[in-house]
Amino acid sequence: MVMLSTSRRLRRTPFSPGVEAAGVKAYTVYNHMLLPTVFRSVQEDYHHLKNAVQVWDVACERQVELRGPHAARLAQWLTPRDLRGIQVGQCAYVPIVDETGGMLNDPVAVKLAEDRWWISIADSDLLYWVKGLAHSFHLDVLVDEPDVSPLAVQGPLAEDLMAAVFGDAVRSIRFFRFKELEFQGRAMVVARSGYSKQGGFEIYVEGGDLGMPLWDALMEAGRGMDVRAGCPNLIERIEGGLLSYGNDMTDDNTPHECGLGKFCNTESAIGCIGRDALLRVAKEGPVKQIRPISIGGEKVPPVEEFWPLVAGERMVGRVSSAARSPDFNTTVAIGMVRMTHWDAGTELTVVTPDGPRPARVEEHFWI
Amino acid sequence: MVMLSTSRRLRRTPFSPGVEAAGVKAYTVYNHMLLPTVFRSVQEDYHHLKNAVQVWDVACERQVELRGPHAARLAQWLTPRDLRGIQVGQCAYVPIVDETGGMLNDPVAVKLAEDRWWISIADSDLLYWVKGLAHSFHLDVLVDEPDVSPLAVQGPLAEDLMAAVFGDAVRSIRFFRFKELEFQGRAMVVARSGYSKQGGFEIYVEGGDLGMPLWDALMEAGRGMDVRAGCPNLIERIEGGLLSYGNDMTDDNTPHECGLGKFCNTESAIGCIGRDALLRVAKEGPVKQIRPISIGGEKVPPVEEFWPLVAGERMVGRVSSAARSPDFNTTVAIGMVRMTHWDAGTELTVVTPDGPRPARVEEHFWI
Repeated sequence: MVMLSTSRRLRRTPFSPGVEAAGVKAYTVYNHMLLPTVFRSVQEDYHHLKNAVQVWDVACERQVELRGPHAARLAQWLTPRDLRGIQVGQCAYVPIVDETGGMLNDPVAVKLAEDRWWISIADSDLLYWVKGLAHSFHLDVLVDEPDVSPLAVQGPLAEDLMAAVFGDAVRSIRFFRFKELEFQGRAMVVARSGYSKQGGFEIYVEGGDLGMPLWDALMEAGRGMDVRAGCPNLIERIEGGLLSYGNDMTDDNTPHECGLGKFCNTESAIGCIGRDALLRVAKEGPVKQIRPISIGGEKVPPVEEFWPLVAGERMVGRVSSAARSPDFNTTVAIGMVRMTHWDAGTELTVVTPDGPRPARVEEHFWI
Repeated sequence: MVMLSTSRRLRRTPFSPGVEAAGVKAYTVYNHMLLPTVFRSVQEDYHHLKNAVQVWDVACERQVELRGPHAARLAQWLTPRDLRGIQVGQCAYVPIVDETGGMLNDPVAVKLAEDRWWISIADSDLLYWVKGLAHSFHLDVLVDEPDVSPLAVQGPLAEDLMAAVFGDAVRSIRFFRFKELEFQGRAMVVARSGYSKQGGFEIYVEGGDLGMPLWDALMEAGRGMDVRAGCPNLIERIEGGLLSYGNDMTDDNTPHECGLGKFCNTESAIGCIGRDALLRVAKEGPVKQIRPISIGGEKVPPVEEFWPLVAGERMVGRVSSAARSPDFNTTVAIGMVRMTHWDAGTELTVVTPDGPRPARVEEHFWI
């Protein structure tokens, strides 16, 4: 880790006072905003996340709001996922592609109304792409970044904690669905979603003023559940195969390469800007794809640049995220591997900054 | 300062090994890339920048390349600056605005050929906006981010150092002009420009392989000139009134509010997307504008959120950047002030996290 100089450009969030009081140890920068990465240690945070419940400042999941008669049409232009079946009250993971089929972002779309969507973005200024399209085609839609800051509650006790603050109505929210629930007299979108495999919720907090009251209410209600401040955990998200835009994929990659073909309905996604470019890969499959990779040996450094995956002399892929897993007693990693070497069980070598290590293509992520 | 967790998403640059060997103390994140902020200390770096010469890793100034028959047309759509007079070999500071006149970026456009431009961007994914427009209007232009990493040489001895590496041809490069000069047999765009008021050059390094050889050559040639690794300096850039996108201005602001009206020719910038929205403010002027602000008292904390500027009970503006200036023995700051209180000499109060301080609107930046 290195030092980060703060400035207004790296935006604080409505929850920053809570994060600081909880003793945050490090940040990353995500959508021009501070995102905590460590509280006690990545390992300790990991064990706690899997056993209790954490409150995460994920305000950096900024929203691109589409509002107006053409909102649904514009949403469909962005993604090869067919959105016609998505209901109001539903969330949908939507790979966003450009005209070449390259991924621009991998957000969750939240359908608030027939004519109102929030697109809860990963780390790129998707707003600029969407504004460019809406302007160019004179669509009847407002596109902007509203003052909405998600707060996540994640971990096996998440439902109990949420019920203590929002009432038992949270218990009936299904996965990737949301309800509007009240906190201090204000309606908030509460979805069963989040960037972990432990289960939990994301609360879309509109306006900054209720940020710390909500944070404090969760901390207070969770005392008996060992609630702590937390954050997306590097180890847990690799174990679960949760991809990170900018780490594991960029605009060089199609959704199919990223193993996101299951979220695409390229044939029927009429209007999707990248549809034509993706038809062939959707049918025939990609020549390289995301795979779970286990790496031999003990500790690994952080992946700061792609680590080549080689078979003999031949470069056949790269690792983009890796961390030592205490629970699985191996180094879990996310790689992109060429078809010739992507079968489960294939033994490869990964070239880390500390030297070559044995690597193996696994059948499944560690879930 | 706080700790930063590194990952592939916060991209390293071709010059990172040099930056690390030089003992970088802190970074910021800019265009998803590491940008050094401190080597010895902000104060020591400041004095050295004003007296000697520094080599800066500004690879984070990513390029948006426009290439093809419609490149110039597209460039003009982006900005209210009339680009018709810009020659090949010239650079131009171009405020970029959306359809409402709000600033999306404030890059330097580099005209490489009639049909080829680089737009050297500040901290936002301008590529997405430009791609959205080019795609929507079926323009005959390729838009992408090429593998180009600028390296800056800044300070009073910059010309001597550059001449030692590139030859005396650099001496005849005029301000905001460039020449293509050879380094190790490869042509590089070398411009007289940079994010300081001390004078200097920016070298647009194509491909990463020559990054460290160039870095080393500059360090070697500059030994007798006390050359050091450096970076944009907070104090020096505020003294010089160099604005920072995301700090001092956002898409909420017009170029006119930012004091950039002199770079706009709104009336004649035919095709500029924000032209119609800006015509009135271009003619009548804005109701608030960037101003140099001096702040009383000793040290100030970093500006992490806007500091309100108040006159009595009334909020009349905000400070977005501030630092103690050793040379001017005051705290220099950049503010945005309403018309009613923006005259030079106006005494205000700035509300810092450490409490209120006297503030004064100055006539000029400190240059």
